[in-house]
Amino acid sequence: MTIENISCNKSFDGWHKQYSHFSKTLNCQMRFAIYLPPSAGVNKKVPVLYWLSGLTCTDENFMQKAGAQRLAAELGIAIVAPDTSPRGDDVADDAGYDLGKGAGFYVNATQAPWNRHYQMYDYVVNELPDLIEELFPVSDKRSISGHSMGGHGALVIGMRNPQRYRSMSAFSPISNPMDCPWGKKALTAYLGTDESTWQAYDASLLMRKATDFVPVLVDQGGADDFLVEQLKPEVLQAAAKESGYPLQLAIHQGYDHSYYFISSFIEQHLRFHAEYLNK
Amino acid sequence: MTIENISCNKSFDGWHKQYSHFSKTLNCQMRFAIYLPPSAGVNKKVPVLYWLSGLTCTDENFMQKAGAQRLAAELGIAIVAPDTSPRGDDVADDAGYDLGKGAGFYVNATQAPWNRHYQMYDYVVNELPDLIEELFPVSDKRSISGHSMGGHGALVIGMRNPQRYRSMSAFSPISNPMDCPWGKKALTAYLGTDESTWQAYDASLLMRKATDFVPVLVDQGGADDFLVEQLKPEVLQAAAKESGYPLQLAIHQGYDHSYYFISSFIEQHLRFHAEYLNK
Repeated sequence: MTIENISCNKSFDGWHKQYSHFSKTLNCQMRFAIYLPPSAGVNKKVPVLYWLSGLTCTDENFMQKAGAQRLAAELGIAIVAPDTSPRGDDVADDAGYDLGKGAGFYVNATQAPWNRHYQMYDYVVNELPDLIEELFPVSDKRSISGHSMGGHGALVIGMRNPQRYRSMSAFSPISNPMDCPWGKKALTAYLGTDESTWQAYDASLLMRKATDFVPVLVDQGGADDFLVEQLKPEVLQAAAKESGYPLQLAIHQGYDHSYYFISSFIEQHLRFHAEYLNK
Repeated sequence: MTIENISCNKSFDGWHKQYSHFSKTLNCQMRFAIYLPPSAGVNKKVPVLYWLSGLTCTDENFMQKAGAQRLAAELGIAIVAPDTSPRGDDVADDAGYDLGKGAGFYVNATQAPWNRHYQMYDYVVNELPDLIEELFPVSDKRSISGHSMGGHGALVIGMRNPQRYRSMSAFSPISNPMDCPWGKKALTAYLGTDESTWQAYDASLLMRKATDFVPVLVDQGGADDFLVEQLKPEVLQAAAKESGYPLQLAIHQGYDHSYYFISSFIEQHLRFHAEYLNK
């Protein structure tokens, strides 16, 4: 396993670092970022919060804009932010911002030309944690969170792997991708037109059928331009009601889809995850 | 006075907004950002911290990356972030990142072609506060802070206008621009080769001669790549010793020149300014 450190910044007495590595799952070179709190060390393994970003993002958006390091340092939690898709000149792409590079949707693509690289579900669930837990002073206590497309990813991955994640949360998730324009476009391209194959990637559908519950917090801005057409938190809430899933979902009036919203509520998310990670 | 609102995001229960306006001082259209804490309102004027950014920045870097809104909301302080130079197709520029657009150095240029637009000192000291205090629910209690080139600007503007600012602070300021490559290049271009005209823009020189003191806090990263050649906090410290200026300067080992450093210590700066602004 070769992995190259490409940046390093001290932050809240801990360290923000970016790495490049070859992903076997994605069949390309990938970058990720990790924040290591000051308490992490050779004799102290810390738990990890995985953060999945939204459309057009890389590993950098959350690390630069969310203000999460202050809390991660205080609570003794590492944060790992992968990229949002495979990358590189030979990776298939689309002219739209909502398909292809920067828009991997955290699925395992089955359709050409996407299936050669777009295996983000397996990368986030298996390869990346294996690498992180081998190379860094972290434990196998994991939680997962994300924003928009990454909120979708966090909820889907959390619900499909309740034994691997202690808690999950999302900001403004694409809650019902089977029934919104972003989701339909991406799932058709990556998985094909047989909608039964989409079901494993729909948070509302998974929540409706769930029997093994992961603690979950969802925050949504009430002034989010994508709220009605793309995000549909009401579908997620109805699903939770049906299965009895203990979903904590709040709509925050006036807040939009930006990192100004995320940064305003990231403290609550970190403290929520810390409850389960630091048990 | 025409001023156009171009963006608006709720943030920590207050509002981040960007505006465009025609600056008479700079003779061009300018953008600035303001954060209004939730306590600001028709019956409650809040004090203002002006933030001056560094080379290559716009009004956006600080607002997106510093994590200052959390404290500004708590402490009831507005933050105003101007751009770092005049802007527009007819504004003189240089191929280097350290002169021209994005590099106004907060001086009033006297040399062609720069003098037609590059009057950032007057813009920050007079025109912008006049506009802010006329249009927003803010008082005339002002403090000033900045980073790198903006740290230089904040210290120079604070020391030259002790009656206008209650406190000043800087991250990684260009402390002695008369004697570093960035400063020499910019001051030569904007002010000409007569170095006596540079003196009004050198924080160390102003601090050495000061008799009217403004409370001042300076933080510097010990692993900053620009520390030795460009920033020279030791010159500022020697100047303070000479005049008895009550400078609080700290070097923080391991921290670099990035916003990861600024965000790690912004809370101390906001609380420092609040002491004087909320008196």
